[in-house]
Amino acid sequence: MKHIKLDQVEEKELYPGFIARIIHTKLQSISYVRCLKGAVLPPHKHAEEQVLNLLEGEMNVTVDGRTVHCKAGDVVHIPSNAVHTVTAITECLAIDLFAPQREAYIEYGTRTF
Amino acid sequence: MKHIKLDQVEEKELYPGFIARIIHTKLQSISYVRCLKGAVLPPHKHAEEQVLNLLEGEMNVTVDGRTVHCKAGDVVHIPSNAVHTVTAITECLAIDLFAPQREAYIEYGTRTF
Repeated sequence: MKHIKLDQVEEKELYPGFIARIIHTKLQSISYVRCLKGAVLPPHKHAEEQVLNLLEGEMNVTVDGRTVHCKAGDVVHIPSNAVHTVTAITECLAIDLFAPQREAYIEYGTRTF
Repeated sequence: MKHIKLDQVEEKELYPGFIARIIHTKLQSISYVRCLKGAVLPPHKHAEEQVLNLLEGEMNVTVDGRTVHCKAGDVVHIPSNAVHTVTAITECLAIDLFAPQREAYIEYGTRTF
């Protein structure tokens, strides 16, 4: 067992206005992200599938050219290698799940293994 | 892309007092769990690794005989095949992540694939 207190995990500003605390297991990465109001995540893609769980706030999420408006309680599945971008309409809190491990972030946060 | 509104996902009482909405991707399962105050999850184990993310409330989590007291913002990694149990001290809201897919729950909830 590993017991982690999130506020003891270092914060990393992944992109301007997107501040994350990241946990890696052997099989997945979990990114707790605070998005500042108005922050825009530039279009990008990665091989890992992503599941965005919006806990607080409102954002627009665009995946492969289709945009959805998300509120707290919304979940967006972003397939492997789909180009996606996010615009935070308000300040937001989200949990992004990646499987397998999000390779580009492996140096940040903490690990369970 | 798949856009899911959690309140449109069916609820399933996995154990008495543990009510979940579950999303399965090809690589992982995500279980949004509401735990009633005083509910006790009986000791069990499974091959899938589990990451318990406590969003609201307080609970005791026991894994392979070691108990930790958890509050909102705590994360517990439960390794593959570790025997674990949970006691909800207050009403709680948690997100349980499983990788690979939680086979025993595959018939519940919704799928992204």
